[in-house]
Amino acid sequence: MIQPETRMELLVSLAKRRGFIYPGSEIYGGFANSWDYGPYGSELKRNIRDIWWKRFVTGRQDVYAIETPIIMNPKAWEASGHLETFSDPLVDCKRCRKRFRADHLMEQLGRDPAAIDLTGVNCPECGGELTDVRHFNLMFKTFIGVTEDESNVAYLRPETAGGMFVAWKNVRDSLHKRLPLGLAQIGKAFRNEITPGNYIFRTREFDQMEIEYFVKPEDAPQAFEMWLGEMKRWCEEVLKLRPANTEYVEISEEERAFYSARTIDVEYQYPFGQKELYGLANRTDYDLSRHQEVSKEDLRYLDPETNERYIPYVIEPTWGLDRTVLAVLAEHIDIDEADSVSGDKEPRMVLRLPPILAPVKVAILPLQKKDDLVGMAAPLAAMLREAGIATEYDTSASIGKRYRRQDEIGTPWCITVDQDSLTDQQVTIRDRDTMEQVRVSVADVRAWVEERLK
Amino acid sequence: MIQPETRMELLVSLAKRRGFIYPGSEIYGGFANSWDYGPYGSELKRNIRDIWWKRFVTGRQDVYAIETPIIMNPKAWEASGHLETFSDPLVDCKRCRKRFRADHLMEQLGRDPAAIDLTGVNCPECGGELTDVRHFNLMFKTFIGVTEDESNVAYLRPETAGGMFVAWKNVRDSLHKRLPLGLAQIGKAFRNEITPGNYIFRTREFDQMEIEYFVKPEDAPQAFEMWLGEMKRWCEEVLKLRPANTEYVEISEEERAFYSARTIDVEYQYPFGQKELYGLANRTDYDLSRHQEVSKEDLRYLDPETNERYIPYVIEPTWGLDRTVLAVLAEHIDIDEADSVSGDKEPRMVLRLPPILAPVKVAILPLQKKDDLVGMAAPLAAMLREAGIATEYDTSASIGKRYRRQDEIGTPWCITVDQDSLTDQQVTIRDRDTMEQVRVSVADVRAWVEERLK
Repeated sequence: MIQPETRMELLVSLAKRRGFIYPGSEIYGGFANSWDYGPYGSELKRNIRDIWWKRFVTGRQDVYAIETPIIMNPKAWEASGHLETFSDPLVDCKRCRKRFRADHLMEQLGRDPAAIDLTGVNCPECGGELTDVRHFNLMFKTFIGVTEDESNVAYLRPETAGGMFVAWKNVRDSLHKRLPLGLAQIGKAFRNEITPGNYIFRTREFDQMEIEYFVKPEDAPQAFEMWLGEMKRWCEEVLKLRPANTEYVEISEEERAFYSARTIDVEYQYPFGQKELYGLANRTDYDLSRHQEVSKEDLRYLDPETNERYIPYVIEPTWGLDRTVLAVLAEHIDIDEADSVSGDKEPRMVLRLPPILAPVKVAILPLQKKDDLVGMAAPLAAMLREAGIATEYDTSASIGKRYRRQDEIGTPWCITVDQDSLTDQQVTIRDRDTMEQVRVSVADVRAWVEERLK
Repeated sequence: MIQPETRMELLVSLAKRRGFIYPGSEIYGGFANSWDYGPYGSELKRNIRDIWWKRFVTGRQDVYAIETPIIMNPKAWEASGHLETFSDPLVDCKRCRKRFRADHLMEQLGRDPAAIDLTGVNCPECGGELTDVRHFNLMFKTFIGVTEDESNVAYLRPETAGGMFVAWKNVRDSLHKRLPLGLAQIGKAFRNEITPGNYIFRTREFDQMEIEYFVKPEDAPQAFEMWLGEMKRWCEEVLKLRPANTEYVEISEEERAFYSARTIDVEYQYPFGQKELYGLANRTDYDLSRHQEVSKEDLRYLDPETNERYIPYVIEPTWGLDRTVLAVLAEHIDIDEADSVSGDKEPRMVLRLPPILAPVKVAILPLQKKDDLVGMAAPLAAMLREAGIATEYDTSASIGKRYRRQDEIGTPWCITVDQDSLTDQQVTIRDRDTMEQVRVSVADVRAWVEERLK
């Protein structure tokens, strides 16, 4: 039985070695929890993004796309409350200079982290005296224009949601659609985290997929249930996460934000523990009311059925994209210690990704690098690529090594072109998971693959 | 004949009114050249992005995806030269306090803007004395962690290219591919511009689509020609820009960057003048050599054919995504002043977008809002959406108004369901450009549309 730490180490190692995820700025000694997505990681991420989009935006008649800037007018963050309250409580040890999150210290002491009181508490490292609690805002700050003074301060958005509330009025006025009406955005958000870590789980910049679903207040509970169902089906049907690894945690009234009428955290059993993957909240009319109050603009919706004007309620399902990539990798990496190839440092690993998520769908492998085999294999690869199927063509090493490489990047089907192919116009398709091999006519390969990707 | 200024005003007005592009943070009085993409603008942008990706990444065997962070180790920007030289030269008037770009003042005086000398030059506004030239770096600055001191300074990337050079070593070592090898990235870049403007043409944050194409030094000129051809075909075949509106400007040795062996700017005739749309450069081995020098890592490529080690040359084609959106809107907006509908303030406008770019492909419009028509039309819309075709369903107004709305958002085909449809199971498809109407069997609608989107 592989320990979770070992499992995590093997995953990180495979992801680097096979071009999924590299340490960021590595040639400069790295950089503070930043990561590059390599070719296969980028394509895996893009597949998740595209399937999400098709499922929740273009595939629905009630959800519309939107793209708002990373740097907005700072008044928006004043209205949303981020300027005042989006902060971590920090204390420093006056003796050893170590810095701690005050709420984490409270937790370690078995006390309520929401009511911080560190009277009489000393540094857990050296016993020194602690400073008073300081609140450190998590928004990255920058300056617009030449002078770096307070009047030019702006912030990198800490979530994509804010821009959707700010744009609500323009959407309402240009679309003329009835409620329910959702806005969807995928993009970067930034948080100046004091304690990032756990690989790509918590980084200072990350991609969010968010929907703000505007509804009549009385329809909010039902819309919440609808999105809860959608999130469950997403986890099970698209990502193929085992239900045993996923928990839908109902957040109690005391623990959730004061404006939230209901919150559920979707948690996943990562190798380093059960952590938040997604969130779903009934934010009531809090956000639009705040923006209406601060901006003095009328953000109400005119209901054409009742002729009433009201602030819609908002159901907000949020998906962390990088956390999804990590959950998918952790869920589907299959490590077989018994099957370690002799001489290799690492055990045999197969990334059993659902085919629609796999960065490469098909690898075309001529059995040997001979002119006649290459002459048949290369055009087959080009044809599949032309048809929009992510296809690799590889002649670089022994067939065993090439299979192993494709197994590690999660390619569901390897197609070999051999001497017989030249006469019978058939190729061998090997299934990554069953290891079964079938002979398929070259003319039918495309349809064979497309059928299985539906 | 409509004046370019009027044309631009009408475009901006339509884009706001119809949900393509809104002023950013508008409820807070706007914000310094920032814009929101509304539902149709976001989908237009996404279509451009997706077609680009399919054409230049998944559709090719020599270009791979990559995603690198917006905030990198600042040493990367030291090596690239951005910290030292990516700046605008500014002067202030000591009397009226106005600020000017020194190179722009030189141009206005008919002098060489590359050799700034403002001795004896006074403020063009008030005649006051000017300060010395100060160089203002265009990179947005932020701070990582709690303390805002120099040791924690980091920058928002001013281009996506930098991250690809920094990740080159990991890509080389994990992919084991032969040259030529391209890396492609789409993402945000940020520049603290002193003079942004012209709508979405020059904004402080923008999306780039960039490829770094690594080649053997002797293959660079040929690879340059190959990408020049690709860029031309992209403009003509995908965006359908009239060749008369596009110019490929060869940049002379004196004007181009010192490390560039050849540069071509792709310029487009915007309503506000001919401006840079894309760029193509032979950057030689400059970037990787600089990073090798500063990082002390061996960034050479081992050529398996010759067993030589060398720094590859890089051909860099760059596409501005927001500038593409603007060029496409400007190119395809068709304004017919003679056909102004009476009572309307604006002339009749049709967005004649190429169908593959259009945010909505099909609008399903029941002729009246009657149960039997709706009962036939709604499932047809759902079926097309399910098939991945961007479809709108609209029952909101008179048929004339609904046609007009679809013309303004560029929908190529409007499908009406009328009383006859109930008996003959046929619908009427109206072509946006020819205004021709054809009757098509409901069962054939999907295939009819898909055929035309190929």
